[in-house]
This record gives sequence, structure tokens and C-alpha cells, in this order.
Amino acid sequence: MQCVKVLGGVVGAAALLGLGIILGHFAIPKGTDSPAPSVSVPQDLDLELLETVMGQLDASRIRENLRELSKEPHLATTPRDEALVQLLLQRWQDPESGLDSAGTSEYEVLLSFPSQEQPNHVDVVGPTGDIIHSCRRSEENLTGEQGGPNVVPPYAAYAPPGSPQGLLVYANQGTEEDFMWLSNQGIQLQDTIVLTRYGGIGRGAKAVNAAQHRAAGLLVYTDPGDINDGKSLPNETFPHSWGLPPSGVERGSYFEYFGDPLTPYLPANPSSFRLDPANVSGFPPIPTQPIGFEDAKVLLCQVNMSIHNRLELRNSSNVLGIIRGAVEPDRYVLYGNHRDSWVHGAVDPSSGTAVLLELSRVLGTLLKKGTWRPRRSVVFASWGAEEFGLIGSTEFTEEFFSKLQERTVAYINVDISVFANVTLRAQGTPPVQSVIFSATKQIPAPGTSSLSIYDNWIRYSNRSSPVYGLVPSLGTLGAGSDYAPFVHFLGISSMDLAYNYDRSKTSARIYPTYHTAFDTFDYVDKFVDPGFSSHQAVARTAGSVLLRLSDSLFLPLNVSDYSETLRSFLQAAQQHLGALLKQHSISLGPLATAVEKFEGAATVLDQHISTTQKGTPDPLQVRMLNDQLMLLERTFLNSRAFPEERYYSHVLWAPRTGSVATFPGLSNACSRATNTGAGSAAWAEVQRQLSILVAALENAAATLRPVADL
Amino acid sequence: MQCVKVLGGVVGAAALLGLGIILGHFAIPKGTDSPAPSVSVPQDLDLELLETVMGQLDASRIRENLRELSKEPHLATTPRDEALVQLLLQRWQDPESGLDSAGTSEYEVLLSFPSQEQPNHVDVVGPTGDIIHSCRRSEENLTGEQGGPNVVPPYAAYAPPGSPQGLLVYANQGTEEDFMWLSNQGIQLQDTIVLTRYGGIGRGAKAVNAAQHRAAGLLVYTDPGDINDGKSLPNETFPHSWGLPPSGVERGSYFEYFGDPLTPYLPANPSSFRLDPANVSGFPPIPTQPIGFEDAKVLLCQVNMSIHNRLELRNSSNVLGIIRGAVEPDRYVLYGNHRDSWVHGAVDPSSGTAVLLELSRVLGTLLKKGTWRPRRSVVFASWGAEEFGLIGSTEFTEEFFSKLQERTVAYINVDISVFANVTLRAQGTPPVQSVIFSATKQIPAPGTSSLSIYDNWIRYSNRSSPVYGLVPSLGTLGAGSDYAPFVHFLGISSMDLAYNYDRSKTSARIYPTYHTAFDTFDYVDKFVDPGFSSHQAVARTAGSVLLRLSDSLFLPLNVSDYSETLRSFLQAAQQHLGALLKQHSISLGPLATAVEKFEGAATVLDQHISTTQKGTPDPLQVRMLNDQLMLLERTFLNSRAFPEERYYSHVLWAPRTGSVATFPGLSNACSRATNTGAGSAAWAEVQRQLSILVAALENAAATLRPVADL
Repeated sequence: MQCVKVLGGVVGAAALLGLGIILGHFAIPKGTDSPAPSVSVPQDLDLELLETVMGQLDASRIRENLRELSKEPHLATTPRDEALVQLLLQRWQDPESGLDSAGTSEYEVLLSFPSQEQPNHVDVVGPTGDIIHSCRRSEENLTGEQGGPNVVPPYAAYAPPGSPQGLLVYANQGTEEDFMWLSNQGIQLQDTIVLTRYGGIGRGAKAVNAAQHRAAGLLVYTDPGDINDGKSLPNETFPHSWGLPPSGVERGSYFEYFGDPLTPYLPANPSSFRLDPANVSGFPPIPTQPIGFEDAKVLLCQVNMSIHNRLELRNSSNVLGIIRGAVEPDRYVLYGNHRDSWVHGAVDPSSGTAVLLELSRVLGTLLKKGTWRPRRSVVFASWGAEEFGLIGSTEFTEEFFSKLQERTVAYINVDISVFANVTLRAQGTPPVQSVIFSATKQIPAPGTSSLSIYDNWIRYSNRSSPVYGLVPSLGTLGAGSDYAPFVHFLGISSMDLAYNYDRSKTSARIYPTYHTAFDTFDYVDKFVDPGFSSHQAVARTAGSVLLRLSDSLFLPLNVSDYSETLRSFLQAAQQHLGALLKQHSISLGPLATAVEKFEGAATVLDQHISTTQKGTPDPLQVRMLNDQLMLLERTFLNSRAFPEERYYSHVLWAPRTGSVATFPGLSNACSRATNTGAGSAAWAEVQRQLSILVAALENAAATLRPVADL
Repeated sequence: MQCVKVLGGVVGAAALLGLGIILGHFAIPKGTDSPAPSVSVPQDLDLELLETVMGQLDASRIRENLRELSKEPHLATTPRDEALVQLLLQRWQDPESGLDSAGTSEYEVLLSFPSQEQPNHVDVVGPTGDIIHSCRRSEENLTGEQGGPNVVPPYAAYAPPGSPQGLLVYANQGTEEDFMWLSNQGIQLQDTIVLTRYGGIGRGAKAVNAAQHRAAGLLVYTDPGDINDGKSLPNETFPHSWGLPPSGVERGSYFEYFGDPLTPYLPANPSSFRLDPANVSGFPPIPTQPIGFEDAKVLLCQVNMSIHNRLELRNSSNVLGIIRGAVEPDRYVLYGNHRDSWVHGAVDPSSGTAVLLELSRVLGTLLKKGTWRPRRSVVFASWGAEEFGLIGSTEFTEEFFSKLQERTVAYINVDISVFANVTLRAQGTPPVQSVIFSATKQIPAPGTSSLSIYDNWIRYSNRSSPVYGLVPSLGTLGAGSDYAPFVHFLGISSMDLAYNYDRSKTSARIYPTYHTAFDTFDYVDKFVDPGFSSHQAVARTAGSVLLRLSDSLFLPLNVSDYSETLRSFLQAAQQHLGALLKQHSISLGPLATAVEKFEGAATVLDQHISTTQKGTPDPLQVRMLNDQLMLLERTFLNSRAFPEERYYSHVLWAPRTGSVATFPGLSNACSRATNTGAGSAAWAEVQRQLSILVAALENAAATLRPVADL
């Protein structure tokens, strides 16, 4: 999860960028489009079957999946990562519980690894050059799992090699404001080593900011205040609690974009054109290294860093498994998670993969028994090299751009399935809110006597909706996991599901062992979700959402819920930008009109659906309505709106720098224009962004109107 | 028609760019999606009904339409243009022969007009500044129709005002090569007035080239050798023949792009963001004026030009009429032509509009009688301000981007319907070839005893197809008429239909009175198509194509015909670029593989369609196949492929500078790289273009495969 990009959203706790290697082609055996004649063909969602699936999703099987998935480190493209590819294939090709077909797809992608021969190291040196302190080169082997040869030492993926030496300067979170503050104090940053803590902004941005102030190197540590609610002693942390031990270091990708760095907008096939790595944008400009708080607290004076990371082209696999739809095989419900971890990755990502495997087992078993086949096709995906920048999923969207955009109903992402075992956390675009609500109202919450997941959720995270009253709060999607290319690049309605902690009880930025060698099976089994009932709850939620999307005659996507979002964005724009715009004679009137048109068209469409549902609609009438619902999200794409923001084409969910939840392009353009004169290029850009938005909303509304109105 | 952009295609004879004014919104009353219950619902093409329509298309009614449409000049946005908007509305809202609904849509667009107060003039001045010769300010009033106040004087739309004076230099067609030749002869071009003839390259390009060589002004004339087969005397030309009189002047737009110049990629609504006209790219850089050959032949010495064109924001209307589909109302067959002319515009565009009105009358009558309703929706369009740069159609595609791209089966353009009365001329993307062939095989050719239009066509223009043997030659689509935004910007399979002359009998660049005040009803009635049987033949062809597209159960779009095109492009690339690429270690192997994959997938899909047709497919099975056929053309779009080429996103039909019919992006990149060193940015661009192409073809092939194969 790139927590950086959408600051205004409900930013979840998983930051899943990383390093891996990919190469490839789809090798799924060709099936046929016609349904096998012996299978009963469901025309609509079967509630009895849904209950059967809910009942069969088994917590102890998820636990066993997790144990197997996380028993060895499986950094992208390593032998264990490839072994898990085979595990997934075997499960999805199982004659008793497998899918219709499964296969792998390889891409050749640029990853970054520390050198084995020359380990990265960070030392404090005295005035005469003598080493006063050496930072740990690996985490303390507390449970016997932190010491193996496959535990990659902590490093900052994509940071360049180099051996800078300089005075240490502490720069808080390394934001622009932090550096400005230092400058204003008269602190000289040139040729220093900057120390920052994780949080506030993305990893890569810290390095970019430090380099802009001419620092020579960057160290980034995890502060106990940000991750352990202040606890920092060995006996207060893992294996004695879920807290991060002093030696724990958060690895991570420091690449600023996502996708393979050498092949933006192109699938990273072996023959694809590749940028010259020397000219790639988005890499950290200076040597950078993450460290633990054990080391951070003793750093002082002159620091020497020796960083030996290197870029490597590697082959990384996606695994895809398919259940062919019985009635509309050309409509896809996608469900995915990444496979690669930084070390053992029990929480990130194996808690998601364990759930994925259990769900595919239950559905595969029903399929193989001949008792069920979905109305639409279901595609399960295990993405490679997510930790290095959502690489496997991004390359997949680049390769199959057209068919995915034309045919995908929705994308369900379950990456970290359980951050903690208190409440559901869901993020998504507005059309998926209703199906998540419907599903969670029917599933009991773990650890409570009688509450549904929905009822439990609303206790921890809620908002007052002008339409529905008090409802659970659905977060927005940034770019923190593999949903990013689906929503931002392809305009597919997407969601991310997980169980989470009680934010009132901890200020932890994310679960403490995130991206460290302490994220192991025992950690999950003892501290995150003993009994695995929260894993089961997520499996049930995701399973129910999937079945509702794959089997319902009418797609359970509520386009009217976009009306509420647009109205709130408009009100925020009027409130926070209206006066400024008025000063420059820019009216929000056309935008208000466009929002009204959208609302009107959505309401009429809802009524039309409702009337149609009461009658006996023929298959084509249903298909036409469903196409309107499915394709609404696409209408918000404009590939020319944000030319500087790689992949971001969705005019409503592009990165926004301000803290007000409103239209991002307009808001960002206003920020940039604020201190420029009338007639500046920046003010022209405000007007351009406003017109792009108005045109997108009018264009969207037009697709919701009766189809024979032009 | 921007003859300029695709030099390798079968370049037709209509060059229809021009000047107009638009402003707007759609105001079509809302219908409902459900078919009226009393109407019989056709499930497939009804051949008997098709014959009925063919029989009812009436040459004399087309003639009367043309007389009415062309009786007054109807330059874009003038009162007569607006009167024709009302005429179209009235026809399409007629209770006996109208459509389901019709309405107008206005855009506010930037056009260019000569000043009425200060007429443009061009004079030859002697050494002492005395005027030796003044060019005509208007055409000679030979038939009483060239003298009215509504006849716009000849001018170069979008050329800037100015009064340059300088020595005259003749520069042939004003191509880059022509100017290089002059430079090599030691001829000084700075501060001269350059005289060129029409042809070879586009209008705007002549001005750009002249300005690059620092000329002060540009005159462009029509050479009798290019338009009249050399005839130039008054008694050899109109009204004595179809030849252009000596005083005739071709007007035209000199804007280099298409669409409203101030709102690229945005609909030109009143509130839309507009570029500053002072910074708009694509306008001619120097004062420019077209003249007749009567004046061109006497020009010499020092010439003074006084040009007073001015830019004006005007409101220009599209008129849209709709027949709601009975079974699939969300699938659109679009049929359009522009309405605005330069002067009376009997050939350009009224010959097309006369056909459009007759076809809509016949279909509207059947509709109102209740004897027919198409399976899919049919949309008729009368575009505004095409002559100024395809403005009405482009703004329409910008405004309704998503719904058009999601739902349009094909776009049929009939602009000039009859250039001359000898043979059909058809241009289109490969999927429409088969439906044009099927239609034309069933319609008798005018003026022949027993030949079909197809049989007659093949006598004048043919090629040897590796698949079909000798077939009529389908030309490629450049950007010469309103199909351009549909094919290049939206990726919709498109075609342009007309009757044409025998190219072996004339070297005329286009019909002689093109864009002059001599393009009148009598000109058509006497010289172009006496009896109007060729107009009728085009009406029948377009009508049959439209009905086949709107009513056939299986869409008559043959995707396999793209295989032949791709194979021929590949062979041309291998032959003409292969050696050069090999020198730079660039292999065409991945491209060859991608073409093979496309061919394989298309073949399998064809077999699948054929099998399905023999069975009793259910409605959804047919819809799924049709979606694959309809959407294939979309898969070739890449909005990031040619960032410099406004609107051009189709990787197979973007403008190509070389004369070899092959992949345009690759070919252009190779041309630019040829004389640069290995490792240059130009060679990287060759590799990028190759990868874009490979990815597009693989992506396209993926959409043709069985839909549940990922």
C-alpha cells in the first residue's frame, strides 16, 4: 500500500510495496465457451448455496494454509516464491477441489536486491575515522526464523549503491515541511546523512526530499511511538507481545511509481522495449537504508553508509485460475492477492493468500461435484512482485488492457486479510459499498455473541450518510496494493477487504512486524488472530461478495452511491475552493449542474432497474442494464487528465495533495495556482481541470440515461 | 478530407475541411428503452424488407432534396445553415416519415471569416508602388449564383490577418522538397510572397513550410492541370462543362488539426476551458490567400497581400435523429454527414445530405407505419462546421466519449455522395469490407445493363487478395471527413461511401468546382449525375449496409479481414525496414509472432461463429460474440502512442509519412531514426513503437480468443 498518494482517504495500515522479478506469457490451456451440459445453470444468486459456502469456509484450513505459505521466506522470484507458484497451481488444478483451468504468466521485470558479497552497512565513525558503532546488518534471531540464508537483510529497494559519509541530521518524517523547518533553523543539510522515521509520507518521497536538500544519504527507522504505542524494550515486544523488537527493520520499495520500472504502460515481456535504467525516473536519488530503533537511538556524529544494492532483471510469475461462467462467461469477477513477501510474510501477504486458497478450495469442490457453476466467470489471481511496486498486477493490466476493461465486473483484493482481530476494514469505490454491506449483514462477527460483521464494523468506523443515515465507513483506495492498476489505470470498480484493530486503542501506523523478519506464522497464531476466526470472517465476507457479484442476475453494483460521493466532493469544493475560484472569476456552476445531471440519471436508472426486476425481463434487457452498471467506473477515466501521474487516469481518485476530500485534479491545480497571478498557466490549468471534470461527469451521466437517448 | 495525413492509402478525391461555428447541448426528448409493443420485433435481417427499402429509395426525391439543400449558400453558422437545421429537424420529426426522436446539439466553436468591411485583396505592384494588377475579390458571376451577399469571398480559413508585400516566388506544391529545391538553386525566400498550387500536401502544411523558409505570405491557386485535365478557357469550363472556370477559387480550412481549435479533447460547451487563441498551435503562421488560375497566370514581380480574416466564436449545431432498436437499443449504428458548405455546396456536402434525407424518409415511413423497427438503434447525424475542421463530429465524440465507445457498432459516413457517376469508391477499416461487398453485390450499377455495383466497381479499382482473389479495392480512411474522430479517436469501425469518376480518364485532383461558388445544383444536375441514378446507387449501398448492421442477428463485421491487413503490413515492414532494423539489432520476430497470434485467434473465432450460427444460439451467446466483433477496433487504440498527433490513437491508421503501406508508428520512427547514431533517442523510439504495436496486437488477439480463456 502506497500510503502516500491519497492522503485524504481512510488510509489503511498495509504498506505493501516491494521488490521482485517477472517474465512472461499466459499459458492457460484453452477451454471452450460453452458450459458443460451436465451442470445446473444458476440464473441468479442461490442463497442456500451461499450459506453452504459460508459454512464450509474453515478457519483451521486457513491456519494450515498460512503455516505452509509462511514457513519459508518467499521474496519475489526466489526459489521459494517459485515453489509457491507450484503450490497454487497444484491446488487450482486439483481434480477434487480445483478450478476449470489454471496457469502461470511470467514477466521479466527490474527488481533491486542487496549484494550478498558486500552487505550494506551503516557505521558511526569518530573524528579520526574510527568506528564507534556499527548498525546491525540483520535482525536479532529471536525465534530461530530470523537467521536463515533466505532472510533478505534489511534494505531500501531501488536505492542506489554508494558510500556516503557525513554528519547526522534528524529530520523527523522527512516531509517538505520538516526540511523547511531545519533550513529555517539554519541547519546546513548539504553532505549530511539524514535520519528520518517512517510515516507521514511514502518511502521514496523521503529520499527525494532529502536529496533536494543535498543530503548525501538517508536512514529511515521505525519509531516505537509510531508502531508499538511507545513500547520499546525487548521484554515488551515480540515474542512476548505483538510489538516490534528493537532490532526489527521495515524493508520496502523506495520506487515512486508502480509497475515494472523499465516498461511503463507496456507488458514486461522479454521482447518489450525497456527504458535505460540510468534514465529511469522514480528511483531514490541517494543511497538509503532502513534501520531498527535499537540502532536509531544510538546514532550520533558522523555516519558512514555503505550501500551495495543492485538492480537485476528477474522473471516473476502471476498464477491465474479460472472458473468459467455458465451464462455470461465473458463477464469476469476478479479476486486477487500478491504472493511475494519480504521475509516469511505471514501477515503480509500470506494471510490473504491463505484465505484465497480456502475460498478457491470450497468453490472448486462445489464446482467439481457439479453442484454449482457461477453465472459469470471467476478469475483468481496470485500476483508476483507486489512488494517491489505492484508489478505483477500492473503488468497483467498492461497486457490484457482491452479485455479486462471491456469485461471485468469488479476486482476484489484481499492482501493482508487480518491486521488484527477487532473489526472489518473495507476500502473501495462507491459502487461496491452496497454489496459489501449486504454481505456483512449476513455474517456473524467473530468473538461476539450475536453481532453481524456489519453491526460490529459500524461500532468502530462509521459516518453519517445523507442517504442511509449511520453506516460503516468505506475507505477510499490509494495505491497500496494490487487494486491500484485496476481502479486507476483501467477504471474497474474495486475493493480491498481485511480485519483490523481498534484505532482508539493503538496509534500503531500498521501492525508492528510489518516487512520485518518477525512477521511469522507464530506471530499470527499467537498475537494477531489466535483461532483464525477473523481470517474466517474475511474469507466469508470476500466469498459472499464474490458470489453476489458472480451469480446475481442483476449486478449488485449501486451506481447511485456515486451520487453521494460527487455531492460531498462538490460541497467540499464549494466550501474550500469556492471563494478563491470566485476571486478569479471561475464558477463552479457547470460542475454543480453536472453533478445534478449525474444524480438525476442515476435515480432514473435505479427506478428502471427496480421496475425491471419486478417484471420478467428477458436476458438481453438484464445484460444491457448490467453493462451500464459495470461500465460506469470506466467513464471517469481520462488518460490525458494527469500526464505527470503515471497510470492515474481516474479523475475522481487520482492522488490529492490537500487534506479536503474533494475532486483531486481541481484541488491540486488550485493549490498550485494559489500564489500565482491571474492569467498564469497555473490558473489556466485550474480551468482545464474543471472542464475535464465537468466533461467526465456529463459523459458518465450520459451512460446512465436510457440507452436510446443520445 | 485531409488528404495530407495518410499518403499511403487510396486517397480519395474529397478534401472537405472547412470553417463553421458551434455551441452546445443535446436536447433530445427522453424516450424509453422498451420497444413499443405493437411493433413486430425483427430478430434478424429481413431480406424482403431490404428489397423494399432498395426499391423505395427514389432518385427524383434525392434530386429535389439536393435542389432545396443547395439553393442558397449555407456556410457553417450562417442563417441558411440554421434554416437547414430546422429542415432536418422537421423531416426527422415528421409524423408520417420521421424517426423516433430528433434534436439539436450546439457547440460554441472558433471559426474564421473574412472581414466584410475590409475585403481581402491581392495586388501586383510596380517598382514605384503603383498597382499593376488586382486579383479578383470574388468569382465571376457566370450563372447568377456567384454574386449574392451570402457567397463568402475566397479565403484561407484560420490564416492570420496581415499585409505583407514582397517578390513573388513560385514554389510548386509547397512541399518540403519544393522549398529545398529552391534553396539549392540559391533562391532567397526571406520576405517573399510564395505562390504554390493546390495538391501534394495539405493546405496548412504549405503555409507552415513557407513560413519556415521565412516567406512573408502565401498564395495558393488551383492549376488547370490538376483539376481540369489542362482545360482552362472559359468556353471549355463551367457552365459549358464540369471544368472549373478561370475565376474559380478553392476555399478551405488551413487549420492543421481537427476539432474546435480552442477545446482539444473537451466538448466546446460554453463553460469549457478554452486555450488562448494567441497560443493555439496548428494555425497557418503567415497571411495566406487562395486565388484562381485566371489570376495566378498573370502574377509576377512584387505582390501585395491584404488579408483581414478574423477569428470568431460562433454557435454551430449538430442535428441528431434516432430510431430506437427493438432488441438491442444500446447498440448504435451511426450514419452521418456534415451540413455546412463553403458556398452552395451542391456536391460538397449536399449530395450526401440529399441521400441521407431520402434514406431517413424511407426508413422513417416504414417505422411510422409499424412495419419495421431495427434490432439495434440507428442514429442519423447532420454535423455542423465540418469545413472548418470536422468540428461538429469531433465535439460530439468528445462529449459522449464513453457511451459511443462502449456501444457503437459502426459509423457510416456519406459526405460527397457523388464525385462523378462511374464507379463506387469505398474507404473503411477492414471489418467493414465484407458488409460493403455483400451489399453491393445485390444492387444494380447505374448506367449498365446487368452489372451489380460490385461488378462495376471491380472493373475500375481492384486488388488481388491472398484470401479472396480479385476484389474491389477498399481504400483507407485518412482524416478527410467526419469519420476521422470516430476511427482515430474512438476506435470505431468506420467507412466512407461515394460514387466516383474513372481515374484512368482524368487526372483531376477532385471534382473541379470543389469549394468554389460554381458547386451548384445545376452543376450536379447537368454534369455530375444527370438523372441522379448514382445518387440513388449510393443511397441503396449505404441503406443496405446500414440495415445489415442494424438488423443482422450476427454482426456482419469480419474481423479476419484484419488478418490480411496485418499480414501485408508485416510483409511490407520486413521488406522495407527489416534490413535497417537488423543493422540496429532490432528483430521483427515478436511482431511476426503477434500477427500470427492474431490470425490464429481470428480463425478460431470465425469457426466458432460459423458453428454457433448453425445451431440455435441463445440471445446472450450471440451478444457475447457480437461484442467481440464490435469491440475489436477499440483494442488498437493507445492514447499514449503518438502524443504529438492530436486525436490519433489508432496504432494501425495513424498518419504515416512514408509511401509504403505498413505500420505507421514504426515506419515514421524508422524514418526519423535513419540518420541518427546507434543509441539515439530516435532509435529508442523505434523500439518503443515496435513494443506498442506488439502489445496492441497481442491485446487484440486476446479479445478474439474464447472469452473464458484469460
